[in-house]
Amino acid sequence: MSKTIGENSSPIFSVRHNDTGTSARTGVLQTAHGKIETPVFMPVGSLGTVKGIDSHEIQSCGFGLILGNAYHLYLRPGHTLIAEQGGLHQFMQWPGALLTDSGGFQMVSLANLCKVTEEHVGFKSHLDGSWHELTPEFCMEVQVALGSDIMMMLDHCPPYPSTEAQVREAVDRTTRWARRCLSVPRQAHQFLFGIIQGGVFPSLRQEAAGQLMELGFDGYALGGLSLGEEKQTMFQVIQSVTKHLPVDRPRYLMGVGLPEDILEGVCRGVDMFDCVIPTRHGRTGWLFTSSGRVLIKNAKYARDESPIDSECSCPVCQRYSRSYLRHLYVANEMLGVRLNTIHNLWYYGSFVSKIRRAIEMGQLQEFRTQFYEAQEGSGQDAKQDSVCV
Amino acid sequence: MSKTIGENSSPIFSVRHNDTGTSARTGVLQTAHGKIETPVFMPVGSLGTVKGIDSHEIQSCGFGLILGNAYHLYLRPGHTLIAEQGGLHQFMQWPGALLTDSGGFQMVSLANLCKVTEEHVGFKSHLDGSWHELTPEFCMEVQVALGSDIMMMLDHCPPYPSTEAQVREAVDRTTRWARRCLSVPRQAHQFLFGIIQGGVFPSLRQEAAGQLMELGFDGYALGGLSLGEEKQTMFQVIQSVTKHLPVDRPRYLMGVGLPEDILEGVCRGVDMFDCVIPTRHGRTGWLFTSSGRVLIKNAKYARDESPIDSECSCPVCQRYSRSYLRHLYVANEMLGVRLNTIHNLWYYGSFVSKIRRAIEMGQLQEFRTQFYEAQEGSGQDAKQDSVCV
Repeated sequence: MSKTIGENSSPIFSVRHNDTGTSARTGVLQTAHGKIETPVFMPVGSLGTVKGIDSHEIQSCGFGLILGNAYHLYLRPGHTLIAEQGGLHQFMQWPGALLTDSGGFQMVSLANLCKVTEEHVGFKSHLDGSWHELTPEFCMEVQVALGSDIMMMLDHCPPYPSTEAQVREAVDRTTRWARRCLSVPRQAHQFLFGIIQGGVFPSLRQEAAGQLMELGFDGYALGGLSLGEEKQTMFQVIQSVTKHLPVDRPRYLMGVGLPEDILEGVCRGVDMFDCVIPTRHGRTGWLFTSSGRVLIKNAKYARDESPIDSECSCPVCQRYSRSYLRHLYVANEMLGVRLNTIHNLWYYGSFVSKIRRAIEMGQLQEFRTQFYEAQEGSGQDAKQDSVCV
Repeated sequence: MSKTIGENSSPIFSVRHNDTGTSARTGVLQTAHGKIETPVFMPVGSLGTVKGIDSHEIQSCGFGLILGNAYHLYLRPGHTLIAEQGGLHQFMQWPGALLTDSGGFQMVSLANLCKVTEEHVGFKSHLDGSWHELTPEFCMEVQVALGSDIMMMLDHCPPYPSTEAQVREAVDRTTRWARRCLSVPRQAHQFLFGIIQGGVFPSLRQEAAGQLMELGFDGYALGGLSLGEEKQTMFQVIQSVTKHLPVDRPRYLMGVGLPEDILEGVCRGVDMFDCVIPTRHGRTGWLFTSSGRVLIKNAKYARDESPIDSECSCPVCQRYSRSYLRHLYVANEMLGVRLNTIHNLWYYGSFVSKIRRAIEMGQLQEFRTQFYEAQEGSGQDAKQDSVCV
């Protein structure tokens, strides 16, 4: 039923290499704004900007696909305004590809009061308390106006934990909404992804996936994960779903995560990831390195002349010392946030690039082992997710 | 008495062109970190960073000389730490020239409690309330540790308004401190500027200038202006002093100002300017254009597809619309601050470059007339200094 794809071909995606030891694979997303190699990490630019970083810099960090958010942009500055300005690519001067989230998750998590009915999601704006009612069709219209390359359907994401009955209701509603989303005309270049809900119940996840596959989407996302469930549970759910998904469609794990989560997601057949972690951690001074995380405000870095990561070739590590970056952080200087963010984005871009190369070289297992060894033996500031997420 | 200059030569400065209609002139400052054409505007980087902008970008905005501040850097991260890291150039990775202010003004204006005695300035840190006593000699030592190309003596800057007796006391103390500052050994590449006080009393200003000239400095600064006195008073004071200063030494008007102030200062024989205005105005959304100032948050820019200034060739005006910049401002997005700051710095750099060219072409009067006509007829958001300073 998806407007832009036939039964047996996927103009959006082709697989290049399959790993033999895991479900990992490399591939290429073909969009109207460039080819994107997968597995891919997508920086989050909810409001039409990756925080503090302009579009040239996003590209120079190695990214060709970033995220916008329909909820945020609908509220401010408004999707019609952006459409009048030539769409989101033009508005933010981003020459690469754009994926827009429908904002279903943000309505539930950010809005002051949120009421999901069969017809729509009603919510009070987190900005001014004004009341809004967004139907699945309207969420599509917002994204059509934004002109993103990949649109996300509006889903019903239940909180964690929820009962099986509650999750089943959300799955069934999501499927009904999927049908409504598919009925909305899109721009010729726009792909539409379905979102698989189902909480931590593998049977519900598979049921949800089956229903969406029957409708036919350009790609399939896993929503409603990383909401507080155990990591192992999350990975089991991912594995239980991806093995049932069509091999010729991209799979997108929404809102996840740390480098180790991305690596484990890839091993379970996921192609696409997004997360605020590299940018948010940049703002709070948590820096990713090849040997674990550095909390730059720590006093031990006050006189440290070395770069954040001596193995990193990002523009920040090529020029600035930990000592200077600590000073900027402690002095609350904006430049610190910016440099930290650039480094973290570069780390993520480089990390998925190494994963792709490892898959293509048939060395993913070795890469995985070395990654964990480097993290474990580091003596860096944190290895506990709970400390820094 | 100044360590690095002979009686009849000035290794730091040479005049190139003198304007016939005014006291304006062009020249070249020769520092260990590059030649700087004057009149020059110096962006303020008090804490070892021009807020939000990295050193590559400062250069690409056309600047080769920026400011650091001994008061700020002494308090945080400490001048000895910076010295250990190879000095301020190395610490902040700035390949151009650096001028450091002694911080006398900041001690008086930022510190919670400030007590000036003959021996030192005592003050409570604005950061943690700790008590510090900085002698003129120590202020030199801090700047020697920072390794700046141009150091400023510690002066006693009286508030405005002050009585003639109070200003005389500050002038006499400044001269005694000047002698103490000159006695401190400097690095071979470091120049030292004297600071002329004297409030709004031309006779005291001339007396102060005479005393400092007798001691012999590499350059002469006018301090204690733009503190609330009438603009015309300030310009009269400037004119009354510069005509007595040696032609072969650079003259620096501290902390001034708006583009029109710089233009008027140049016409009265000033060579160097610094001010937080382009960066601070960038943060508050006031943007300079060839036809007046734009307050980017104004609703009328919401759908304005044009650049900030269609005559500007800065990287922001080449790419981004007022509509996008207004959105970033209203959404409180850091990228907006950054782009606004880059535009304003570019405007200032381009403005003094045009002034230099006008002087060299013998067209300063025409430039001045055209500048005011463009500002007057603009219908832009503000022509009142009081609104936006």
